[in-house]
Parts: sequence; C-alpha cells; structure tokens
Amino acid sequence: MRNLEVAPLTAAVFAPFGDVIETQGRDHYTINEGTTERYHDLANIDVGEGDGQPLVSIFQATPRPVPITIKMMERHPLGSQAFMPLSVQPYLVVVAGPGDEVDAGTLKAFITNGRQGVNYAKNTWHHPVLALSEVCDFLVIDRGGPGDNLQEYYFPEELALNISL
Amino acid sequence: MRNLEVAPLTAAVFAPFGDVIETQGRDHYTINEGTTERYHDLANIDVGEGDGQPLVSIFQATPRPVPITIKMMERHPLGSQAFMPLSVQPYLVVVAGPGDEVDAGTLKAFITNGRQGVNYAKNTWHHPVLALSEVCDFLVIDRGGPGDNLQEYYFPEELALNISL
Repeated sequence: MRNLEVAPLTAAVFAPFGDVIETQGRDHYTINEGTTERYHDLANIDVGEGDGQPLVSIFQATPRPVPITIKMMERHPLGSQAFMPLSVQPYLVVVAGPGDEVDAGTLKAFITNGRQGVNYAKNTWHHPVLALSEVCDFLVIDRGGPGDNLQEYYFPEELALNISL
Repeated sequence: MRNLEVAPLTAAVFAPFGDVIETQGRDHYTINEGTTERYHDLANIDVGEGDGQPLVSIFQATPRPVPITIKMMERHPLGSQAFMPLSVQPYLVVVAGPGDEVDAGTLKAFITNGRQGVNYAKNTWHHPVLALSEVCDFLVIDRGGPGDNLQEYYFPEELALNISL
C-alpha cells in the first residue's frame, strides 16, 4: 500500500485548498484599551449559496487506529467548512485536487503546529477530521440550509493510502 | 465602589443575552465512521443584516490589572459576536440589559468553566473580552460589512464597578 508523506502545514502550501486560521505572520491591530490584538478576517466563510447560513458546531474527534488509512474523501459543494482546535495539539489535514472523482495522485497530507485551524474552500476534497494523540474538540463553521452539501468518494481498495508519520 | 458578584456561566442564565457554546448537556450524533461526535448548531450566528457577512478573526487577550473595573460596555447593533477560547481556561463575561443607555443595576458577571464559548446576541450590551490568568486566544465570529456596528457606553465615574473574584 502506498504511503502518503506528511508535510508541515503553512498558509502558502494550503492556499489552493483554503485558508490556514492562525496568528503567525498575520496582520493585527490593537483594540479594547490596549488589552487585545485583533487578527482580522482570517478565513473566507463562504456559506451563503442556495439560502445557506453559517452553522457553528463542535466536533469531538477520537484518534483512529495507526497506521491511519485513507480510504475515502469528501467535499461540500455548497459551502466552506472551517475547523479550529479548542486545545493546543496537532492534527492531520488531507486534501486532494479538483475533479468529479478523486485522483489519488493529487493527495496531500499536512500536520498542523498545534495551534492552526483550517478552512476548506467550497467543493475542496478533504478527509474527515483526523485527531492524533488524544480526543480533540474542534469548533466547526460550515453551512446549514437546503440542498445536498455532501459528496463522498471511496477509493478502489488497491488505491487506499497509509499515512506515514 | 460597588462590587459586581460573579456567578458560574450556564446556558440558562445566559439565555437572555445569547448562546453558550459548549458540548455539556447538548444533543450530538455520530459521524465519520464512528470517530466523531457532532454537537450541532450551537450558536445563532446573526450577521446578515445590511449586507453583512460572517468574519472569522482571532483575538489575543491580555489580562487586565486586578481588581478589574467595569467602566464601559459596548454592543453591536448589526450582528452577533461569538467568542470561543482556543485553550482551556476560564474568562469573565459581563453583560447588561437592553436600553439606549446601560443601567448599571442590570449588569451581570459570569465566569466560564474553561471550555465554554459565548455568542452575544445582536445589540446585547457586553464588556470587551476579559482574560484572567494569562494571555488567551479566542476565535471570534462576528459581522463584516457596511454600516456602524459599534456602540459604546461609558459609565459616570461614580457608577464604575469592581469585579469581585
């Protein structure tokens, strides 16, 4: 089974897939009588299509057995989906290039620095959330509203990939 | 100077002011092949008025000198504003009843359990974020768009309140 190499997550490498939500290297300004720095507008929340509304939820994610095997991917054709970890710990992000089917050759895996969130752009293939060492809560901002906003793609068995950590 | 007593934050006591964003006591369902629990739709993100859009930012909040004195309040007449702590630590939430001016007699102060977020309903008087023991990052979901979305109210000096911790 092919191994998928894991690279550090940065805003630059993730740009084709969406936004990295982080303070590092971002513009900020001071508010609240000097007590607070505002790092402003870090993600393109794109959920308005087809009478969509922003939804805020918490996903409580349990690590999967190791080695983690990538058997499927999903995407949300009507809206973006943001994940922000609610404790400081790294997790895995797996994305793929565009197309009606997932080309396994386009898969990319990233590991966060423990503080980064991600916002998958509308219609971007991604793997469901992958916690690593312990159960992790994520604040999730996605779309509520009419229409079918979930597509899944299952790889043929011989194309499943192991994550190489 | 009058002291403002601090009560534990619960969804019930906070209901007149907005939402508590938390998993405790909330409905959830299983997704992602049994690895994830989704606590669904925990906050009313109400930012669409006047061509508004959801904004995602990070506020990095430094604790104020003790005793914390409440000298002013603010509200956002065009949209809700949600705060979610990105590490597990309590912070203070101070809100007041409706009206063009703030009635100091209506002020209420709450302390979170370390994991709770809050979403101030549109036009709800609240104090800017109050971190406690250390610098704390918050994910903030509020409104971007045209129009004046900030009103501030400064108490006459003799009506300022100390937080009683």
